[in-house]
Order: sequence, then structure tokens, then C-alpha cells
Amino acid sequence: MAACAFAVRLLPLLRGRFCPAPSAVRAFSCTGTRSQLHSEKGTSPLTGRVDRFGGVTVNLADISLPADISESSFSRLLQDSLLEWKAEGKVAVWLRVPISLSRCAAAAATHGFTFHHAKDDHAVLALWLGEGESRLPGFATHQIGVAGAVVDESNGKVLVVQDRNKTKNAWKFPGGLSDPGENIGATAVREVFEETGVRSEFRSLLSIRQQHNHPGAFGMSDMYIICRLSPLSYDINFCTQECLRCEWLDLSELAATGDTTPITSRIARLLLHGLERGFRHIDLTVEELPAVYSGMFYQLYHRQLPPTLQS
Amino acid sequence: MAACAFAVRLLPLLRGRFCPAPSAVRAFSCTGTRSQLHSEKGTSPLTGRVDRFGGVTVNLADISLPADISESSFSRLLQDSLLEWKAEGKVAVWLRVPISLSRCAAAAATHGFTFHHAKDDHAVLALWLGEGESRLPGFATHQIGVAGAVVDESNGKVLVVQDRNKTKNAWKFPGGLSDPGENIGATAVREVFEETGVRSEFRSLLSIRQQHNHPGAFGMSDMYIICRLSPLSYDINFCTQECLRCEWLDLSELAATGDTTPITSRIARLLLHGLERGFRHIDLTVEELPAVYSGMFYQLYHRQLPPTLQS
Repeated sequence: MAACAFAVRLLPLLRGRFCPAPSAVRAFSCTGTRSQLHSEKGTSPLTGRVDRFGGVTVNLADISLPADISESSFSRLLQDSLLEWKAEGKVAVWLRVPISLSRCAAAAATHGFTFHHAKDDHAVLALWLGEGESRLPGFATHQIGVAGAVVDESNGKVLVVQDRNKTKNAWKFPGGLSDPGENIGATAVREVFEETGVRSEFRSLLSIRQQHNHPGAFGMSDMYIICRLSPLSYDINFCTQECLRCEWLDLSELAATGDTTPITSRIARLLLHGLERGFRHIDLTVEELPAVYSGMFYQLYHRQLPPTLQS
Repeated sequence: MAACAFAVRLLPLLRGRFCPAPSAVRAFSCTGTRSQLHSEKGTSPLTGRVDRFGGVTVNLADISLPADISESSFSRLLQDSLLEWKAEGKVAVWLRVPISLSRCAAAAATHGFTFHHAKDDHAVLALWLGEGESRLPGFATHQIGVAGAVVDESNGKVLVVQDRNKTKNAWKFPGGLSDPGENIGATAVREVFEETGVRSEFRSLLSIRQQHNHPGAFGMSDMYIICRLSPLSYDINFCTQECLRCEWLDLSELAATGDTTPITSRIARLLLHGLERGFRHIDLTVEELPAVYSGMFYQLYHRQLPPTLQS
């Protein structure tokens, strides 16, 4: 079984630890070297940082390009540099282009560069120079949406809303998209409060839905996560701009009604099971742990371990 | 409790269903109208499509701009259009810019536009014209990595690798990044095969880790998911380019050794629990369901429901 083709094998390696953009490099030990490349025309050189995977990154904000450099001038400069990089055996070139120098992106496109990603005030373009298909890592592919099922264990009710702007007014759990850098549980608590006025705390992760080519995600993928929350307050103060109705509904009623979405109905039955037999049967609990390399923290979700197996 | 500020309330609404780019609009009933806007200079008009949230989208590839339009000409055209859009009460403008017309992005930046995202041969820029802080939806924030824990139930062994390029040679489950549009289980099976030569099938989702500002994700967030797989073949044929070692290791040994990562150790203990008491105690199972609006399918993961609560 010839699973071990070199082209295939380098893929996760490059993907996992390629570090082209400064933001990606920050917490990383990228032992880059400087390579000065002067064009024959005497214009400013394209200075690139070489990474350990054989790629070179040029940040146009860091080199002394004339602010009014023309597309054709930059194109010539890039062409000369590409010849050198190819001769040196570089496998990839990354260009970080400030939005004000966007015309350089058009020039780079004539040499085969494409957009890798762009954000706020800059774009990052890439060109694969190595053999075969590009093995460059992609950019973020998923948006994360989170809903909160706030369960009042004292009476078996759950907090639900009806969205004003849906054609079918189906009961659903309040929720919305995660902000950049926001933890799953924090999104659930925030969105529940923003939509319903009810304060709550995170208890567990219940369900994950993965959907691709999502219309609300600019054609990218959507991960929709439902959490179980406990109420810290009970008075509803929902906004009529967004919601038609907001109620504490019997879980058994939500599990039985046709006025809901398939996922909400499913999770209502799961919650009913948890309410009757113990939420430990349906929960993924969370723990915060330190990351090995960066020293930052991550959140890990899985089924609770029995006490004998906890470290 | 004044949770119901209009500015806050519109946020998830705009985020969830704003539909600026053609790719996002495809499966969507965006009842857009055409608004022709002619500049005073007699150049080609900026034609925008208006969405139901009061935003206007201009695709520069769809309008008859001269291919060599200068930054200053496009800037004047945009300025005139912005005056009209503001007078009409539009809340946002989206510009889809082909990479060959990137100089228009620089011109747009002088009017306050920033990059929303870019991919392959085009960039999308946005400008918020409404009151207060921008309520425009963001772009994808997470990359998805998946590892596969292939458990041989007949002997209690699990397939593990040691990565050649890590400083500490710790046992871990084979895995890598999801390709765009790839389901979680498919990534696990593919990556296990690519790294080890072992064929397997998806059984369940065990664990999720969320980590922000990830160095390997261009500073974005990373979602790392561990799945349980069953082996369909047993012979190891790993690539020495990527792995230092690859073995079927006793789960009890993996759970006890210090030569592993904290997450792998944790999941080994979870799997040991599953092996001894039944995997139903640790699994999230998956089901494929049709999406209400698009007719496409999504994958839903949660704890198995007892038979009496299954629909």
C-alpha cells in the first residue's frame, strides 16, 4: 500500500507549521534568515524572510518600495526576485500587501500569485514554486455559531425564542456567531443575554453540527454548537426587533411540538433524558489547560472521566 | 435590565443572514433590487445590488469598468456613489474586487473600506455606513484539525505516531487539517491513512479543543477534534518523512506513559474507560440530516438517545 508518497506526506507538515505572516510567527520559533534580492533596474530590493520549510515571505510594508510604485515596475521587480528564488530552490513565496499598495497584488497575479487571505488593512498572496500540487496550508474555513439551552432544573422548563425574521415561527434556542477569539461557552452566555435578557452560566457542550457551503458564511463552512446553561436570572426581557416570542417552555412540550426545528426537537429530547436520568449522560464537560508551546490556554471538551481515571 | 438595545439586537440578525457576496447568495432568497448609479464624469456606473438589510453589493467584475481604470478615477466614481448611497440611507457597502483590479481596493481604502476577506482571484471589501459600531458579519474564524484514535477492540491497542519534526518525540494520534468542505470523520480517516497506511472507519467524536491566536492558523482560532475509529486494516506503512515511529500501542500503556501530550494522555484514559465499560459511555455519534433551507445535508453529533426518545 503506497500511502507514503512524499507529496502527500509533506502536506500536513507544511500545513501544520508553515508560518508566513507575522501574526502567525509571533509565538513561533521561525529561524528565518534574510535574503536581499536586488533587481537589475536599481529599484528597491524585495527582501524576504526564509522559513524552515523553504518558503520565503515578503512584507511589502517592511521594504523600501516607493509608495507610488507602478504595477509594471513592481512586476519587473517581482519577476527578477522569482528567478532568484527559483534558482535557490525556494518552494513557496508569500507576499503580505498593505491595502494601500493593492496594485502590487494585481501585478503579482500576472505571475501566478493568488489571494491566500485578507483582513482589515492587508492581504496575503501566495505562489507555490515546489514540485506538483501546492502543499501550502489553507486559511480558516469555519465560522462558529453557538446556541444556549438554558434549563431550569426546578421545573423542567427551557428558554426558547421565535425568530421574527424566519418564515416559519419555530421555537429555537437563542444563539449567534462567536466573536473572534471568543470561547464557545462565552458566546452562548452572551447571546442568550443579548436575545432574552436572561443571565446564565455554562454547564456543558451537548451537540455539534457541521455544514458546508453555508449561505450565511460567505460560502464557507459553519459549525453550530449547542450548550447546556443554567439560569442565573429568570425574568425575560427580549427585544421585539429580533424575536417574536420568548418563553420558558416545558422541555416535554418542546420535545413533542411540531413548531420547532429538527435540531431543537432532537436536543429537547436529549435534555429531557438528561433531566430524568442525570445530565452526566448527555454532557461534554470543559477544562482549561495550558498549551505546550505557546503558554496560552485552550479549552478541552469531552465526556467526564470516572474518578479513578482522572489524573 | 436593558439588554435590548437596538444596536445590539441587530447584530446577530445582520450576522446571521447578511448576504453580500454571490457565493453567499446562491442558496438564499435575497430579494435584491438593482440601483444604477451614474457618476457625473460619464464613466461607467457603479451598479449595486441592494439586500434586505439595507446593504449594497458592487461586483467590479459585473460592471463595465475600463480594465485600466486608474486609482484616482475609481476613487471619484466611488465617492459619487457613496454620496448617493448615504443619501438613500444604505447601511453598508460591499465591494467584490477581482485581483486584476486590485488597485481599486487601494482607492476604496481611502474612503474607509477595509478587507473583509479574499480568496484565490478576488477580494471582498466592506464599509459600514450605518449608525454606531459596524454590525457586519465577520468571515470564517476557525481552522479544523482532526485526529483519529484507531482502537483495536480485540487486543486493546491503539494506533499512535511520533512526529519527526517535534522537539519532544511524544506519542500522539495521527491527524491533520480538514480540507475545505470535508466532514470531520472523513478527515480523520484520510489523515490516518496518509500518515500510517492503516485503513479505518469513523465511529464517534470523542473530544474538542478550542484554541485562539493559533500560530499554525495565521493567528486565527483552531478547533482540534479527536475521533474514535475502527481499523479495517492493521499493517503499518508509515512515511519516514513525517513520522519517526508508528505503532499499535496498548491503551493502558499510552494512558500511563509520560512520552505523550496532555491531550493524548487524557483521551487514552477516556478510551480505556470506553474499552472496559462500553464506548457508549464516551461517544458522540453522528447522523446526517437535510438542511431546512438549502436542501443540502449536515452532520449532527451528540450523545446517543435512548430508544424510547428516538424519533
